[in-house]
Amino acid sequence: MTLTIQQAVDRIKERFGGTVGPGTVDTLKSGDPSQPLRGITVTFMATRQVLDQTVAKGANLLITHEPTFYNHMDDEDWLRNDPVYESKRNFIEQHGIVVWRVHDYPHAHRPDMIVAGMIRELGWQDRLDPDLPNTYRLSPLTLHDLAQYCKAKLRIKTVRYVGDPQMPCSRVALRVGSPGGRAQIDSLKIKGVDVVVSGESAEWETCEYVRDSAAAGEKKALLVLGHANSEEEGMRWLAEWIETFMPEIPVTYLPAGDPFRFV
Amino acid sequence: MTLTIQQAVDRIKERFGGTVGPGTVDTLKSGDPSQPLRGITVTFMATRQVLDQTVAKGANLLITHEPTFYNHMDDEDWLRNDPVYESKRNFIEQHGIVVWRVHDYPHAHRPDMIVAGMIRELGWQDRLDPDLPNTYRLSPLTLHDLAQYCKAKLRIKTVRYVGDPQMPCSRVALRVGSPGGRAQIDSLKIKGVDVVVSGESAEWETCEYVRDSAAAGEKKALLVLGHANSEEEGMRWLAEWIETFMPEIPVTYLPAGDPFRFV
Repeated sequence: MTLTIQQAVDRIKERFGGTVGPGTVDTLKSGDPSQPLRGITVTFMATRQVLDQTVAKGANLLITHEPTFYNHMDDEDWLRNDPVYESKRNFIEQHGIVVWRVHDYPHAHRPDMIVAGMIRELGWQDRLDPDLPNTYRLSPLTLHDLAQYCKAKLRIKTVRYVGDPQMPCSRVALRVGSPGGRAQIDSLKIKGVDVVVSGESAEWETCEYVRDSAAAGEKKALLVLGHANSEEEGMRWLAEWIETFMPEIPVTYLPAGDPFRFV
Repeated sequence: MTLTIQQAVDRIKERFGGTVGPGTVDTLKSGDPSQPLRGITVTFMATRQVLDQTVAKGANLLITHEPTFYNHMDDEDWLRNDPVYESKRNFIEQHGIVVWRVHDYPHAHRPDMIVAGMIRELGWQDRLDPDLPNTYRLSPLTLHDLAQYCKAKLRIKTVRYVGDPQMPCSRVALRVGSPGGRAQIDSLKIKGVDVVVSGESAEWETCEYVRDSAAAGEKKALLVLGHANSEEEGMRWLAEWIETFMPEIPVTYLPAGDPFRFV
């Protein structure tokens, strides 16, 4: 029995279990979901390169964590007639690719699937602190060594941090993606939390809180991995999870990669 | 005649000329403005270190570009009883420092004072493109060389960019601070603009637009300097400007510095 794309989407949604709000961004962004499913690709970001690879794989359902059209709601009106946008939109239509954003579902799942994929890679599966939210209890290591550890485990080119390189870290709050300054600071305000490890961070909120913390005798730190670097392994995890209940469908994880070069 | 802090603030506001909206963040954040002015310090960010230096200078008016309490509106309610916040707030009160945020005024000034300070440092005073907004016309250089140039001129530890390192850049749009993805992309959408040089950037909007641009035959790039790195020289410029019409007052520029270490 051949599955349509819509049937595959419905099966995956059912498995997610958790509910997402009516304003969810997890919608189909393109294509005809009534066509037979040929294969699935899964990525952090549906860049043009990932779309090329999807076509090369013969897949027609691309599951992406982040937006396709450069803004959270995938609003396309402000992009009309822009050659970069039109080229991407045309490529997607021409190849009949259904792009499905899957952002809120995996974050709403318990455990958060994106976090689960990261934790597996970091080797912290048994480190969850039972008393503190999103926090892992490690054997004490310096902030600098924690940065080196995450960089190596996640194969990141460059990471950034704010704080005293020599401060000991044993309780690490993980805030993947782009959680916002207040969420990061709310984690740091918790007694005992030494450092927030995050995807990206505004540079005038949490950074300043961390710099001020030393004078208050409450040394805190912020480690910034990069948004993609903090969530890609979560999408790899999600791809493997789909394979467990749809073994008949070819599923390929495609890394989008860290967009930045550091000089 | 001794000037009060309020009188000094009013004189500076009058000189700014431009108007700011009723919801402006450019308000006094602390202290008693009726006290006699002893001296002014000017900074990008009123970190605890900058506050210490203000006290050491004997100044009691600290002019800062960015917030003091870790969020744009300087809302303090969510921070009550937090030791980092309370320590900073107590220090400011104890030393009677009036903190005045000056963000919207210098950006509303024509020319934008923050941009003027950066352009002076970059040596692009005569490069403004008459036809394109916020854009400078340079002798063509590669994206990589442009990154190296900005890094050297602004004495930055590390800069980041997205795009082909070898692509030639001759029209550079400058978007200091944290302008948001749409503003950055709106600059890149302009025919002829090769690269946006910005302070900070979300990693899932402009980055993806830039990555997609190559496939569309419209190579674009994004160079990210860091928020502080993209505005500090503007605040130095502002400090020198205050000295020109208040020569009797000691005015000291205090760099807050780039908060990040790169590993």
